[in-house]
Amino acid sequence: MRVYGEFDFIEDIRRMFAAMSNNSFEGIGDDCAVLPIGNDEALVFTSDMLNEDVHFWADKSTPYQIGYKSLMVNISDVAAMGAKPVATLLSLALPQECFGEWSEEFIRGYYAASEKHNVKLVGGDTTASINDICISVTAIGRASISNIKRRSAAKVGDMIFVTGELGGSAMGLKDVAKGILDSECAKTHLMPEARVAEGEWLASHADVHAMTDISDGLERDLQHILDESKVSAVVTEQYVPRVKGATWGETVRGGEDYELIFTVGGRDIPRLMDEFEQKFGRRLYPIGVIEESDDDVHALGWRGESGVRYNEEVGGYSHFFMLLDDE
Amino acid sequence: MRVYGEFDFIEDIRRMFAAMSNNSFEGIGDDCAVLPIGNDEALVFTSDMLNEDVHFWADKSTPYQIGYKSLMVNISDVAAMGAKPVATLLSLALPQECFGEWSEEFIRGYYAASEKHNVKLVGGDTTASINDICISVTAIGRASISNIKRRSAAKVGDMIFVTGELGGSAMGLKDVAKGILDSECAKTHLMPEARVAEGEWLASHADVHAMTDISDGLERDLQHILDESKVSAVVTEQYVPRVKGATWGETVRGGEDYELIFTVGGRDIPRLMDEFEQKFGRRLYPIGVIEESDDDVHALGWRGESGVRYNEEVGGYSHFFMLLDDE
Repeated sequence: MRVYGEFDFIEDIRRMFAAMSNNSFEGIGDDCAVLPIGNDEALVFTSDMLNEDVHFWADKSTPYQIGYKSLMVNISDVAAMGAKPVATLLSLALPQECFGEWSEEFIRGYYAASEKHNVKLVGGDTTASINDICISVTAIGRASISNIKRRSAAKVGDMIFVTGELGGSAMGLKDVAKGILDSECAKTHLMPEARVAEGEWLASHADVHAMTDISDGLERDLQHILDESKVSAVVTEQYVPRVKGATWGETVRGGEDYELIFTVGGRDIPRLMDEFEQKFGRRLYPIGVIEESDDDVHALGWRGESGVRYNEEVGGYSHFFMLLDDE
Repeated sequence: MRVYGEFDFIEDIRRMFAAMSNNSFEGIGDDCAVLPIGNDEALVFTSDMLNEDVHFWADKSTPYQIGYKSLMVNISDVAAMGAKPVATLLSLALPQECFGEWSEEFIRGYYAASEKHNVKLVGGDTTASINDICISVTAIGRASISNIKRRSAAKVGDMIFVTGELGGSAMGLKDVAKGILDSECAKTHLMPEARVAEGEWLASHADVHAMTDISDGLERDLQHILDESKVSAVVTEQYVPRVKGATWGETVRGGEDYELIFTVGGRDIPRLMDEFEQKFGRRLYPIGVIEESDDDVHALGWRGESGVRYNEEVGGYSHFFMLLDDE
């Protein structure tokens, strides 16, 4: 018998709230909820929680790193919509011994990440906790409605891109678990960078259709795009950019890379790639193509040496995921 | 030596972020942060966290009640600004055994409270937890900017009102601690009601100046108004409405009553009271008057049989409080 788990719970919530009015909100079930506010403007909202011994080990990362990461993983969801993060609310449950040196270092890291992207802390809550450290961040972003990139916007024929090499965070997690905290990969895992400027720049291009960030792993996050867009895709394995040394599993299922994955139509793909490289000093990686779906199966295929192999079940890193989908 | 605690931490955060641009946000440090969005409209934002064995005992309240309360305490802050709650984001950290019956009952309670006030759940996160249940809610509200009621708006001569009897929640907490879960007061504590319609109605009256909700206790919450408005106040003890049986301490320092406390100027106070009673079937309680401050001391005085006694130190229920103040 299958055990009732997080995904069943989310499905229950989805069904329960589906009947209620959306109060002008759109895009529920995407990286962020979207609220149009007039004049082609919208606000976007997302919340992520980081919990001790689930998302981090308090003895294997500094409070500064935890604070930094708490901010970055949240604004990554804002960037994934093509919006500009403007503010956050931070709620913290801390065991008594964490008030003092720990909390000061935490907020220094949170501030450094906030300052980097000019995101203001506008509210929140702090409370005691009996056992675990629990961190909850809500990020607020702004965007032109016409620029917002939804998971549901991929079109047949689109090329699929990622903004950087994958697998580094998963390799880093292994290092961190072993107590190796100063490797390049450990740093990638402990202090990820959200692709904020990249997301905003891509958002301003109408040929960029669907977009999301790679928090759960390429495989799972691309599958979200396929399911929401009702399309299939074939990714060419050798095109997927890997951090040196990363296994295939770490690369496509590792998660927490916080690169962007997006689809592009139109004839100006080479120019988009050139301009991106010129602007950000890094290249865009084309990894596959969006294809038509058979019936209701939004299949993700991998083109390797022996042809195309389709996924049977989507694996990935299951800590973070969006709660709702009102369709 | 005084121990570094939550309030010191908040003061550190305040100082750290004060230098950063507000990104158009106002009212940081109030019940909610305020973001004007044009056309005399604003959105308001607040986050509160509820943590196991700090805000609730999992064995002394039902998951339904915890879900209900999680929603209500958050939209109470929205109501306290005079705004209409429209949406929430919910993040939940749950021990594995809570996925299933517990989580289903929790979300049923959360839904019931949401439906009562037509508040849509638009996003969030669920995650595993090793030990504690941790619940974080962000509530979003809308209001006309001209209707928003800030803690800082009390004026000398204003009369101070509360919307209902106090002390019930504190009495209920004692019952709950003893395992008496079905008393009237226990229910008040376990399933509080936010004064949403009342807050919106009061907000539409220009004579209503400052407003906040009683979450930390009358004494502490009124002190917030005095500090932000740079005024003093004298409250007449016998006018403070008490739930039958509540001690003085439970009444003014108990907290979690979620009634509104607000100040009113102008000459139409009797009409305001009449209209409120007609509309809501309950009366408004005048309890005191806003007075001028001496220097920087925003004193709260209590008028009893032996004259006026001023508070030396403000006591109260310290679980919930706002994080930030950019002044």
